[in-house]
Amino acid sequence: MTKFIFTNILGTFAFNEKYKAVEGILFKSIENYKEKEKYEEKLRQKHNLEEPKGNDLYNILLYFKNKKYLSEFSKKNLELTKESIRNSVGDDTLIIQTITIMDEIDKTLNSLTKRLRDWYSLCNPEASNKVKDHQKFAALITKKSKNQILKELNISEKDSVGADFKEKDVSVILLLASQINNFYKLRTHYESYLNELEKKECPNLAMVLGSTIAAKLMEHTGSLKKLAELPASTLQILGAEKALFRHIKNKKNRPPKFGLIHEHQLIQKSKKEMYGKIARALADKASMAARIDYFKGEYIGEKLKKELVKKFKIEY
Amino acid sequence: MTKFIFTNILGTFAFNEKYKAVEGILFKSIENYKEKEKYEEKLRQKHNLEEPKGNDLYNILLYFKNKKYLSEFSKKNLELTKESIRNSVGDDTLIIQTITIMDEIDKTLNSLTKRLRDWYSLCNPEASNKVKDHQKFAALITKKSKNQILKELNISEKDSVGADFKEKDVSVILLLASQINNFYKLRTHYESYLNELEKKECPNLAMVLGSTIAAKLMEHTGSLKKLAELPASTLQILGAEKALFRHIKNKKNRPPKFGLIHEHQLIQKSKKEMYGKIARALADKASMAARIDYFKGEYIGEKLKKELVKKFKIEY
Repeated sequence: MTKFIFTNILGTFAFNEKYKAVEGILFKSIENYKEKEKYEEKLRQKHNLEEPKGNDLYNILLYFKNKKYLSEFSKKNLELTKESIRNSVGDDTLIIQTITIMDEIDKTLNSLTKRLRDWYSLCNPEASNKVKDHQKFAALITKKSKNQILKELNISEKDSVGADFKEKDVSVILLLASQINNFYKLRTHYESYLNELEKKECPNLAMVLGSTIAAKLMEHTGSLKKLAELPASTLQILGAEKALFRHIKNKKNRPPKFGLIHEHQLIQKSKKEMYGKIARALADKASMAARIDYFKGEYIGEKLKKELVKKFKIEY
Repeated sequence: MTKFIFTNILGTFAFNEKYKAVEGILFKSIENYKEKEKYEEKLRQKHNLEEPKGNDLYNILLYFKNKKYLSEFSKKNLELTKESIRNSVGDDTLIIQTITIMDEIDKTLNSLTKRLRDWYSLCNPEASNKVKDHQKFAALITKKSKNQILKELNISEKDSVGADFKEKDVSVILLLASQINNFYKLRTHYESYLNELEKKECPNLAMVLGSTIAAKLMEHTGSLKKLAELPASTLQILGAEKALFRHIKNKKNRPPKFGLIHEHQLIQKSKKEMYGKIARALADKASMAARIDYFKGEYIGEKLKKELVKKFKIEY
């Protein structure tokens, strides 16, 4: 009497009460395995079969420990795993990688340019004082000589406090500056790459939040899927977990009004008393956008954005 | 009756008891000021003059608060200050800047290459697993395609766990890799620049300790001068201040045997029980070398090194 049905990557099998396979359909490829229900149905039509449980299942598994099956079994399973890993890399993974590397580049540029200022200031401290923007500073000193820079700042060479460097010593500094310039270019490139990725993967979310904040939210949750699953109120305070738990633990602290979305123009440009209201509305729209994007819905980003702009009378 | 002599950047003056200047020699340039003793001598030969003290000095200083002098005084003083600042930048300052930026680049390369590995591993994790060296990894992926790399590792494309990336998505990663390659080149360049600087500024110290450790010691003390002023026993534990104070506070901890010099080949290649002895001898020679270098003495670096090699029978 056949009694149990059992399916794994090798095929689908009918077992008798003594746990011997009496009939089976072998899968030729992983594709067969993916439509296993179809093959199981065929067996079920011939026999009256049930799913094994407890001890029955254990004994059936023992059957596959047999050398004849085990190597084939593990080989096929490995293939299946590899395929899943390969397919787990979606466009949101690329978005997350890109925003991560952009953050890293920002940190790098910040500390390297500080060092560059220190170093170059030995021969021309006036330039560093006048040009506060890191990117402009690095660009300036690679493009113009000390004399040219001093002239533009209306400082005579005699009045400069900088030491008189040999050309070789200056050129070594400028190598660092031009490396920094290249990094700024790379950052710009990554920014537009991020925009492109998001236009395909999450156009609604990117339109409502801007590409950087959208990417940071995905980085924080791990994927677009997880972000889409969150309630709007959680999305609102993503990234402010510490403040939230401080509030829960010690009721004196107020709950946070926003997390990562605080960098958004709507909030930056508004008055403080409006923060909570705007953050709530923004999170609502963002949450809606994330869900539409995850389920590949239509593009209504412009509309969502317009509603926010109209409601709070702040352009962004 | 003239009584006091007082010199500042404007000139040297003879004052009477009522604190009026009765005679003076004005300095035409900062160079005159630097040889002020010569001019003071001239005045002293004519009058019997003493240095003003306490209240006398105060009243004489008031005399120069006069508008007539003050603007000239502050202008010339500013010039003098500027000159001192300009001249304060010695070759040891360049050495310190160079080693600082090298450290910063090392940190940068480390964190950027980790990110690069994460990112590239989405499409080809096998490469990152096989090539552990950061520099070689970045060079490899810019030079060779995924297929070439897999072939070299004897992995069939079907067996790779990496996702199948579009060419555009790979090229974006390779931009980062080639930026990292450039940074490694820059680091090598700075290494040889450091060697050059030290050959001129501290050839003995560089020969005994190697250019990196020599530079780090100067960075730690702030200048070659300060390093030369330290006793050898302090030089030995420079950079291990925390461990030293832990020892002083809590006698249970042993005093540190070495600080920054622990990276030296002599110590790295020796047995643990020899650490203290070698560190002491190394610090002795290094201290001697630093002093010779500071006072621009002759080059005996080779000799000092040979003595160490001979004593401990360890080549470096």
